[in-house]
Amino acid sequence: MIIVMKPNYTPQQLEGVISSVKAHGLTPHITYGVETAIIAAVGEFHVTSLDPFEVLEGVESVKRISQPFKLGSRQAHPENSIFPIDGFTIGGNDIAIIAGPCSVESRSQILETAHAVREAGANALRGGVFKPRTSPYSFQGLGEEGLEYLAEAREQTGMPIVVEIMSQTQLDVMLKYVDVFQVGARNMQNFNLLRALGETRKTILLKRGLSATIEELLMSAEYLLAGGNKQVVLCERGIRTFETTTRNTTDINAIPVLKKLTHLPVILDPSHSTGHADYVAAIARAAIAAGADGLIVEVHPEPSKAVSDGKQSLKPEAFAEMVKQIKAIAKIMDRRVAPIKKPVTAGW
Amino acid sequence: MIIVMKPNYTPQQLEGVISSVKAHGLTPHITYGVETAIIAAVGEFHVTSLDPFEVLEGVESVKRISQPFKLGSRQAHPENSIFPIDGFTIGGNDIAIIAGPCSVESRSQILETAHAVREAGANALRGGVFKPRTSPYSFQGLGEEGLEYLAEAREQTGMPIVVEIMSQTQLDVMLKYVDVFQVGARNMQNFNLLRALGETRKTILLKRGLSATIEELLMSAEYLLAGGNKQVVLCERGIRTFETTTRNTTDINAIPVLKKLTHLPVILDPSHSTGHADYVAAIARAAIAAGADGLIVEVHPEPSKAVSDGKQSLKPEAFAEMVKQIKAIAKIMDRRVAPIKKPVTAGW
Amino acid sequence: MIIVMKPNYTPQQLEGVISSVKAHGLTPHITYGVETAIIAAVGEFHVTSLDPFEVLEGVESVKRISQPFKLGSRQAHPENSIFPIDGFTIGGNDIAIIAGPCSVESRSQILETAHAVREAGANALRGGVFKPRTSPYSFQGLGEEGLEYLAEAREQTGMPIVVEIMSQTQLDVMLKYVDVFQVGARNMQNFNLLRALGETRKTILLKRGLSATIEELLMSAEYLLAGGNKQVVLCERGIRTFETTTRNTTDINAIPVLKKLTHLPVILDPSHSTGHADYVAAIARAAIAAGADGLIVEVHPEPSKAVSDGKQSLKPEAFAEMVKQIKAIAKIMDRRVAPIKKPVTAGW
Amino acid sequence: MIIVMKPNYTPQQLEGVISSVKAHGLTPHITYGVETAIIAAVGEFHVTSLDPFEVLEGVESVKRISQPFKLGSRQAHPENSIFPIDGFTIGGNDIAIIAGPCSVESRSQILETAHAVREAGANALRGGVFKPRTSPYSFQGLGEEGLEYLAEAREQTGMPIVVEIMSQTQLDVMLKYVDVFQVGARNMQNFNLLRALGETRKTILLKRGLSATIEELLMSAEYLLAGGNKQVVLCERGIRTFETTTRNTTDINAIPVLKKLTHLPVILDPSHSTGHADYVAAIARAAIAAGADGLIVEVHPEPSKAVSDGKQSLKPEAFAEMVKQIKAIAKIMDRRVAPIKKPVTAGW
Repeated sequence: MIIVMKPNYTPQQLEGVISSVKAHGLTPHITYGVETAIIAAVGEFHVTSLDPFEVLEGVESVKRISQPFKLGSRQAHPENSIFPIDGFTIGGNDIAIIAGPCSVESRSQILETAHAVREAGANALRGGVFKPRTSPYSFQGLGEEGLEYLAEAREQTGMPIVVEIMSQTQLDVMLKYVDVFQVGARNMQNFNLLRALGETRKTILLKRGLSATIEELLMSAEYLLAGGNKQVVLCERGIRTFETTTRNTTDINAIPVLKKLTHLPVILDPSHSTGHADYVAAIARAAIAAGADGLIVEVHPEPSKAVSDGKQSLKPEAFAEMVKQIKAIAKIMDRRVAPIKKPVTAGW
Repeated sequence: MIIVMKPNYTPQQLEGVISSVKAHGLTPHITYGVETAIIAAVGEFHVTSLDPFEVLEGVESVKRISQPFKLGSRQAHPENSIFPIDGFTIGGNDIAIIAGPCSVESRSQILETAHAVREAGANALRGGVFKPRTSPYSFQGLGEEGLEYLAEAREQTGMPIVVEIMSQTQLDVMLKYVDVFQVGARNMQNFNLLRALGETRKTILLKRGLSATIEELLMSAEYLLAGGNKQVVLCERGIRTFETTTRNTTDINAIPVLKKLTHLPVILDPSHSTGHADYVAAIARAAIAAGADGLIVEVHPEPSKAVSDGKQSLKPEAFAEMVKQIKAIAKIMDRRVAPIKKPVTAGW
Repeated sequence: MIIVMKPNYTPQQLEGVISSVKAHGLTPHITYGVETAIIAAVGEFHVTSLDPFEVLEGVESVKRISQPFKLGSRQAHPENSIFPIDGFTIGGNDIAIIAGPCSVESRSQILETAHAVREAGANALRGGVFKPRTSPYSFQGLGEEGLEYLAEAREQTGMPIVVEIMSQTQLDVMLKYVDVFQVGARNMQNFNLLRALGETRKTILLKRGLSATIEELLMSAEYLLAGGNKQVVLCERGIRTFETTTRNTTDINAIPVLKKLTHLPVILDPSHSTGHADYVAAIARAAIAAGADGLIVEVHPEPSKAVSDGKQSLKPEAFAEMVKQIKAIAKIMDRRVAPIKKPVTAGW
Repeated sequence: MIIVMKPNYTPQQLEGVISSVKAHGLTPHITYGVETAIIAAVGEFHVTSLDPFEVLEGVESVKRISQPFKLGSRQAHPENSIFPIDGFTIGGNDIAIIAGPCSVESRSQILETAHAVREAGANALRGGVFKPRTSPYSFQGLGEEGLEYLAEAREQTGMPIVVEIMSQTQLDVMLKYVDVFQVGARNMQNFNLLRALGETRKTILLKRGLSATIEELLMSAEYLLAGGNKQVVLCERGIRTFETTTRNTTDINAIPVLKKLTHLPVILDPSHSTGHADYVAAIARAAIAAGADGLIVEVHPEPSKAVSDGKQSLKPEAFAEMVKQIKAIAKIMDRRVAPIKKPVTAGW
């Protein structure tokens, strides 16, 4: 941490800063400049907040030297985190493709989609049962009934299921069913929810908030990791900018940046990051070419009848074509789309 | 709602759109253009989502004509909503000034602050007891102990208390203490929480999300209003932009825009919207000059010792000076800072 | 300047950084931390770019301590810059109100507007004659003919004229007519143009770019000041964000921030920063309440017939009402709207 | 164009709108809704601005149906525009790779770089001679001397040269040397410059502005195309957002969006869009995987000695490795990196 004094600081103010640095168990090193002085605070320093120093009298600014996140940092853990998700692994050489509808709408819809995406090469199934909708007048999801249909789809296809949790109150019922908890963009800083999930031992798919920085995403992951849950997957899903031809702006830079900063697996959601089915395959290819460890894609058997997100959902045929392209890109990256170990145990 | 067909649409596709419009109980009016056709859908139409129409074959785009929010709209309710908050009213001629520390840190800190802001002219007291912190390694708040101290401060000063709720699980304990529930920026789209609060009959102070549009803020208010709770106050608190000299960018435009679109009271939080004590008074004056119905301001007896947000907290003297300026601006706007009816019942 | 080494830096790399610091005439002070080392470079250091240090082997990051702008900085020049604009002064106690149409459309239009805004209390006249239009199919301005009409308006009303320059090629013809050169948002970083204007001795009204930071605005002012032109007025005119209910987002924070960082006068353009006549007066009041030194406002005798920006132009009556409110706010700020010294020399 | 009336519009206001529509040579079709009326204006309508209708009395909003750009639109010209750049073609099956230093610094630097990038597989050479620098105290380029060195590099390597033009005043001297004029991000809306370039018959590489929408980029291209210059290449180079770990945010979505909206070739600049050499190859691969027609990349023989942009410049070896990866991705996309026809005519 570097503390920069104001040009007209007084000796008393400098003394105050030095005391405060020492009081935090750090060693101050002072450099006198032409107009100002700077204090470098050295030590085992992992206080995240710079607040206590910024407000001291005579201080102009405080600059962080070390990263505010620890457990997720690649500095502390240079090797990739690799962990299994019921039948395949994520974070290593294998590419994960999670696919399925925005919402579970009916038993037949989710089973049909599950078989279609499995056949096309997906290795996990997504589907929402509690839907965060901007309008109170919209469809809000099937709830536990939806979880039962997803479990049936898992049994038939062998694919683990990925479901969004919106509130701590849903934790108990979801624990009985889901393999991977998805934390949506709007909940990335719902710290109570993150704490609760950090205490489970299920894989967490943590989506980046609409206006969250990469550093904030890593700080939210820290909540999960600090609870002892090491199975955290990060997901870029587009950020909000001034551009309006797409629903969001895919921050493709986030892929190589995150791969450099953290050992956690990083995937991309081209459905939300573009908001338009026409652009999903192009951005999915880009993600894998940029080094992503996987994709989460919305697929619906009949997008024009979807109760939500139909505009950005791929038909199963388009998804199958996308997977073919992803397999080719993966090969160039010396990787492969993870095969599913488990057999399809039931037709439909 | 206007549906625009693609330039090369087929008669069958147009037929499909017409059927879908009718199936939603609306009357289609078709206009044939040079390259395209447009269908105006007329009726008592308050479906928020355009999704079902955007995904139809042959459709280029769908444009909304009417606003997606109803209960909060000034069209439906031209008069200002005015309601009492324990001793004064908000939304009418009176300006509300809510002040207090970011976090309740101790009994003495909150009591001292309460008396100081009351004396300076504040009419409500704020203080956080459950703190949403970006780092799991930071102070997380005093919990119910903090609520007790706030209640004591209310008793002594006569000011109602405004406290942030972060999760539904805190609702029961908070109901026993608080006068106004604050929903923080990060929870603006925590729809489960909004539903729960919509069923209470306490005033809700709903803060705009960091990257939420004004329309999205109004849609979140709709969740509260739809539950029957009519006491909703909207709060602009800065949005995230590329500018970094301030913590956020105060969207001062939001004040006249919201006053035009909705009948709900609108206040501004200059502490979070600037992130720096030096700028708070200037932005507070600007807010009232722009037509805001009130302010919520962070005040701390000793900002350099605050456990959070010290950098943006005013000292009591600076706050008192700010209130003087606000009173002068209010007068020009033909308004006044609301007096507190209740006496100070205890010294400290 | 602080240079932070990578955690695994080598002694040779540190040596290289030290040599480079010395080669730039600076004195290095080294602090060895737990994981890294930092080098504080001390000296008369006004190199703007950190590039030469960022690219050295073993360097993690470089942080600036001193501001990159010099001539415009309040550190170097604590008193406000105050200078005359033909009949009144700007930057001191007086508030400047510049008003007029987006484009000069005809002799009668500009004369009518000039008399109307003068009568309402404006002290300078604006009007565009070379128009930057996003479409090549739109009206592009009257050119020198427009300048002649503006000069006639000046003669009749006594108000100096403010005109946008779009290109160096327009400089010679404009020098014969204009009192204040306006540099538009799109040209804020047209450095060739800035250099050319820095060599004139006319007042320059420099508008902030649509996505320019406050620091970048001050760096552009530096181009003008470095040429010896000390009469520079800065203008906040809204930035581009994700919000779409207004044309731009007024960065009201920029007013107190700029007043703190620089001694140059700072004004606000509520017409462009909102894009909607309904919001202009509210934001104009907010600007003066926040400490702005003036306003530049679009006024048109018949907005529904304006060739450009009609939507955001005030009618003369609405402008007159706005000036009344501004006068009241100015009084509270212990300021006044600057009177015009010169008489109206011709009726119309 | 759709004109929506305010809920309380009067018959006279509706009549006024209808007259105005007719006065513009369009046919109005009126639909009466529950609360409002809408007027669809049908005809050969290519007025870009909606202004004249937005300001009519009683009008709530005006919505565009057809695109505001014509000549660049894929609707009007469904086939890709393909054109030669001295030795290879762009816009068709071949991928263009333009490489070179940010600034031409010396004869030896540019010749060394030219041979290195040619050997690695580049097919055009970039280099700046007039530099737009945010600070007046920074290196501003070699001017015509730099153009001579670039011409020599072209002669030796057979590669056409791409150089940024900053001002109309540079046009004459540059015309003698350059093959492709680059219009930088800051000049994307320098309409005078665009007009001048539209009258040349040189290829123009038009970079997207830092905060320009995709539609605005296409409107700027319209200025070039309207002048009769059909050789326009569009370049995504990152937009400004709140994220700060990278210099800009690469809008990778812009690649498929632009390929859908326009017939013009689209390339990406991963050096500026990331600002960091570590991320350039990943984003270059992503661009080609997303469908880009080429890349423009900064390469410097010794980045740590570059006078500008060293941080984001690749060393020749890293560039050669990147080209290998791009060739592999191109193959999957059924494309190839364009070979250079001309021989290397001089060693160095």
